[in-house]
Amino acid sequence: MRTIKVRSRQREELVEFTEQVQQQLAVSGQQSGVVVLFVQHTTAGLTVNENADPDVPRDMLHLLRTLIPQHGMGFRHGEENSDAHIKATLAGSSVTIPFKDGKLLLGRWQGIFLCEFDGGRERQVIMTILT
Amino acid sequence: MRTIKVRSRQREELVEFTEQVQQQLAVSGQQSGVVVLFVQHTTAGLTVNENADPDVPRDMLHLLRTLIPQHGMGFRHGEENSDAHIKATLAGSSVTIPFKDGKLLLGRWQGIFLCEFDGGRERQVIMTILT
Amino acid sequence: MRTIKVRSRQREELVEFTEQVQQQLAVSGQQSGVVVLFVQHTTAGLTVNENADPDVPRDMLHLLRTLIPQHGMGFRHGEENSDAHIKATLAGSSVTIPFKDGKLLLGRWQGIFLCEFDGGRERQVIMTILT
Repeated sequence: MRTIKVRSRQREELVEFTEQVQQQLAVSGQQSGVVVLFVQHTTAGLTVNENADPDVPRDMLHLLRTLIPQHGMGFRHGEENSDAHIKATLAGSSVTIPFKDGKLLLGRWQGIFLCEFDGGRERQVIMTILT
Repeated sequence: MRTIKVRSRQREELVEFTEQVQQQLAVSGQQSGVVVLFVQHTTAGLTVNENADPDVPRDMLHLLRTLIPQHGMGFRHGEENSDAHIKATLAGSSVTIPFKDGKLLLGRWQGIFLCEFDGGRERQVIMTILT
Repeated sequence: MRTIKVRSRQREELVEFTEQVQQQLAVSGQQSGVVVLFVQHTTAGLTVNENADPDVPRDMLHLLRTLIPQHGMGFRHGEENSDAHIKATLAGSSVTIPFKDGKLLLGRWQGIFLCEFDGGRERQVIMTILT
């Protein structure tokens, strides 16, 4: 079990950290199984999506902000980040990714992202390898 | 493999059951690994989110109801609970949470919730421990 | 580790493939554990939902299309499929399902679906069995 730290700079940002996961996997020496990543926060999530065109994460944050704006929705939670809690649940708190021959079995366009919805902050992701 | 029963009282409700999971984990005697929770229903989901302020679950259900109302969206499914099926898919049918030294590695504000979207009912969650 | 191929015919479609998963599980001979399914694409997801009434998947795609239309949302990604990337993240790239006595522990109404949001295509799903 390992902790990966991921730093966000903006309130809403998709921060890719595929390389950190692949590196930790290499260090483990494990060849085949699944990697489970779990984010220990309630206003950030994890997802696997396209890492080639930065407009994909941009469009995703734009759409989510349109559907779930920070203000004006009748939210009662006093910290003014209910939008971030909701988006975190929609993204999900974990991703599970298979690996073989020590390599993550990601598709050609897939990267692993921290979905920051209430940053910028340093976030903690727990990485577990199951074989 | 264990079955956890979670009781909801309202049509839409986030019911926390973190303690039941932690207790079953203690009974197992396992020290390190992940817990997989899976809900055996199609109008309820599972999520990990804030368990400190009850306005967070309230705001989440309020927002989801605004975006995905029960009526008036042109749904065809005759049971009048298409909204619940959709919300269940958005939340997801499983959560996967790491543990160490016999304790769930949840962040300070995280709790485990059944997301009830068509209650009140008794719901079944299958808990599997992987080490 | 096995690869399951799932074929979609339309741009948006929920394609059930529960039987293929159950068959591969039977071939493995494993009795108890979890199955992890992971889709190697960024415009398709996976979900567990009702497989009895085809109006449930129809209503789900209808609602998602209403909230996240392909055009007119100010998307910048040049491939005109940002809606599909977003829906893929909302559905999620993996599902994790327990099994016992060699059988998936799905609820009475649950089936496993590929969520196609930019088809029709042949999609690859990686199946891993953890015991």
